[in-house]
Amino acid sequence: MEENSVIAAKLATAWRFLYDKGFIEGFGHISARTADPDRMLISPHSLGRVVAPEDFALDMNGQQYGTHFHLPGEWPIHSEIYKTRPDVNSVAHFHCLYPTSFGVSERELRPTYFLASIFRSGVPIHPDPRLVNTQERGISLARTLGPHRAAVMKAHGVVIVGRDVEEMVAATYILEDNAHRTWVSASMGEVEYLSDEVMAECEAEMLKNRGPFRRIWSMCECHVQEVTK
Amino acid sequence: MEENSVIAAKLATAWRFLYDKGFIEGFGHISARTADPDRMLISPHSLGRVVAPEDFALDMNGQQYGTHFHLPGEWPIHSEIYKTRPDVNSVAHFHCLYPTSFGVSERELRPTYFLASIFRSGVPIHPDPRLVNTQERGISLARTLGPHRAAVMKAHGVVIVGRDVEEMVAATYILEDNAHRTWVSASMGEVEYLSDEVMAECEAEMLKNRGPFRRIWSMCECHVQEVTK
Amino acid sequence: MEENSVIAAKLATAWRFLYDKGFIEGFGHISARTADPDRMLISPHSLGRVVAPEDFALDMNGQQYGTHFHLPGEWPIHSEIYKTRPDVNSVAHFHCLYPTSFGVSERELRPTYFLASIFRSGVPIHPDPRLVNTQERGISLARTLGPHRAAVMKAHGVVIVGRDVEEMVAATYILEDNAHRTWVSASMGEVEYLSDEVMAECEAEMLKNRGPFRRIWSMCECHVQEVTK
Amino acid sequence: MEENSVIAAKLATAWRFLYDKGFIEGFGHISARTADPDRMLISPHSLGRVVAPEDFALDMNGQQYGTHFHLPGEWPIHSEIYKTRPDVNSVAHFHCLYPTSFGVSERELRPTYFLASIFRSGVPIHPDPRLVNTQERGISLARTLGPHRAAVMKAHGVVIVGRDVEEMVAATYILEDNAHRTWVSASMGEVEYLSDEVMAECEAEMLKNRGPFRRIWSMCECHVQEVTK
Repeated sequence: MEENSVIAAKLATAWRFLYDKGFIEGFGHISARTADPDRMLISPHSLGRVVAPEDFALDMNGQQYGTHFHLPGEWPIHSEIYKTRPDVNSVAHFHCLYPTSFGVSERELRPTYFLASIFRSGVPIHPDPRLVNTQERGISLARTLGPHRAAVMKAHGVVIVGRDVEEMVAATYILEDNAHRTWVSASMGEVEYLSDEVMAECEAEMLKNRGPFRRIWSMCECHVQEVTK
Repeated sequence: MEENSVIAAKLATAWRFLYDKGFIEGFGHISARTADPDRMLISPHSLGRVVAPEDFALDMNGQQYGTHFHLPGEWPIHSEIYKTRPDVNSVAHFHCLYPTSFGVSERELRPTYFLASIFRSGVPIHPDPRLVNTQERGISLARTLGPHRAAVMKAHGVVIVGRDVEEMVAATYILEDNAHRTWVSASMGEVEYLSDEVMAECEAEMLKNRGPFRRIWSMCECHVQEVTK
Repeated sequence: MEENSVIAAKLATAWRFLYDKGFIEGFGHISARTADPDRMLISPHSLGRVVAPEDFALDMNGQQYGTHFHLPGEWPIHSEIYKTRPDVNSVAHFHCLYPTSFGVSERELRPTYFLASIFRSGVPIHPDPRLVNTQERGISLARTLGPHRAAVMKAHGVVIVGRDVEEMVAATYILEDNAHRTWVSASMGEVEYLSDEVMAECEAEMLKNRGPFRRIWSMCECHVQEVTK
Repeated sequence: MEENSVIAAKLATAWRFLYDKGFIEGFGHISARTADPDRMLISPHSLGRVVAPEDFALDMNGQQYGTHFHLPGEWPIHSEIYKTRPDVNSVAHFHCLYPTSFGVSERELRPTYFLASIFRSGVPIHPDPRLVNTQERGISLARTLGPHRAAVMKAHGVVIVGRDVEEMVAATYILEDNAHRTWVSASMGEVEYLSDEVMAECEAEMLKNRGPFRRIWSMCECHVQEVTK
């Protein structure tokens, strides 16, 4: 596993990209697991465009380390997922428009875009819209998420996970993009979802060379370089 | 109650945020009650990005104090609501797209987003689309608003109230956001609205710690700091 | 009637506002009648953000005066309307998204917004989608427009007229706004249009004090001041 | 045929315009044929706003010349189309929202906008959503495209061709615009497509004087001048 300073720098890069793309708007937070299994790096309860790498730090039980910033009350989203998902090393929570809107719609949020084949196992809907500000609610959400890459929190938002910060950013981008595209199609009538067979093939190609993940992360880094130069 | 200078500074901050978010566009105005029960601080009939704190002032009967700016002709919206709603200390009027579009739609504007549970008592529709530029029309609108947090003025706009400037800004943000989200869902088919029970629970949590209100106000302050630095 | 230099300065201000609002995008042009009944001031075939007042000039038969810029091939839209509509002193042509989309839709473009009551006489649909680059086509379009404030050119764009540049800008803004709002409502189901009685009352109030026209023109001037300072 | 340096400069101009309009976002690439029939100029796998003219170069079999940048894995889209379409000298691939959304919709992507009459022969849907990163897949896509100006790659994106860079840019702009407009109409109900007769007439006028193509290319050049000055 990478050094904390490396992970924190990636989180700060991810923050700026996701902020400028509108994901953070007032309520988003992101995190990553550290080499120390008892700790995570989590974004402060900040609403500004810039978060410094040294502003990320919290243990799994809510103890704050090395930073005096106010932390998001919903940190149990992150800690409880890390506890039950050893394959997950980065977690994000947003209220993003399109995937969340599917949570209260009669239409299903399923892949209509080949990159979204990574969500082919499904995006479960968590039935409780309340803030996840207790351990109990975090456990409940982690249970809804199960082995999947994302869950919609009904009438609230989404949670998205990845094996590293790069994958969390790519999955976030793809989830929103797929929901946006599916909405455009669905607002005109019936939608043709990807078949299981096609989704499996698309996903296998993506996970084999991880090209689209790297490409989205490159786009993120490139954006941050351009806006900070 | 706060000093007028403190309230006026908050209104100027709110103006800049709401302006940049597109709420003001040509027609919006905001106000706050002062410690003097006969006066309110109301935005001038300005269309610029920046309004100075000292440009806000009017009495409840339309007499202008301490400023020579042109005032919005619809000031009776504000004065009549303050007269009938002692719990309200800040009022806003906008023509914002999504809530207003529900006023001429067969679909209902009801909460599909947990933060919008604060509107669970309902958002009544005022039947008269005309400018509210007389006391009589202001009284009529205040009657439609009744004890609620907002009303849609059919084919015209919305009026939103709060116990202070911060709450007015948060309620504005949430009303627009909820309408935007509900439109996305409704354009695809049937919508699942929050049940009374769930709305009551969400609202109780919000009003208990007021976290989301503070967060939206922080976002407002943060935005203004970034664009003015 | 105003001096040409005054009219040209207003057209340059209008251009910048309409450009930044997305109306010009590649294909828009605007004009105004001059005191000399044989001439109009028309925007050059420019696609840049800035057009100088001295770049506007053409006679009613396509002869170019005082400028060597390339002129829009569709100048007969303007000249033929000026010839048949003595009440009109400013004309605009755009391909703007929302009103144009109603021209190929089963839904009607009618007022759902009180300011759009100025279009209560109707917005006729011109059946010919081709470029209006001949006098014959200009005459045909002017005939479709008849006594109205605007016409939709099916599968092409819109033409909007005003008694002066200020009114042309306000009518443009209101036509697009009304179509945008009506689309949001119509994409969710049935729409409640304004009744004839209500439209007549709203229009009478608007034309009496012209407040909304002045306000939109102020917004235009204010925008240009902010972006050019 | 033009010098490579001239073509490359046009591609760099096109890149900047298409980037700022959102076409490139993470996944787009563009190319042009050179005087040497075995080579094409293709954009590097770049995600930045600026690509220098000297960064474009590849032969038709994937051999890279004169640049050490990473190239897009989907270069076979370009090479296989050039091999089968001697009339085509520029190719683009994007994941753009509106045309792609029609590929999984029950609604047809056909002209509802007069400029889109250039697509009157049809926009076929390629059934395979996977990355076109082999010669075999490139051949298959070129077969779907056939003699048309564009094809939708189902659940993936679009491919657009032109006789030169200018026409590729104009066709891209028009394809997206037409799909956007058609979506607005289709989300409200039935859509009136252009009749064969009207499309034929509109297309004939466009191809005769090529005015709209030149105008869109002028808009592209004008944009790049403004953002780089």
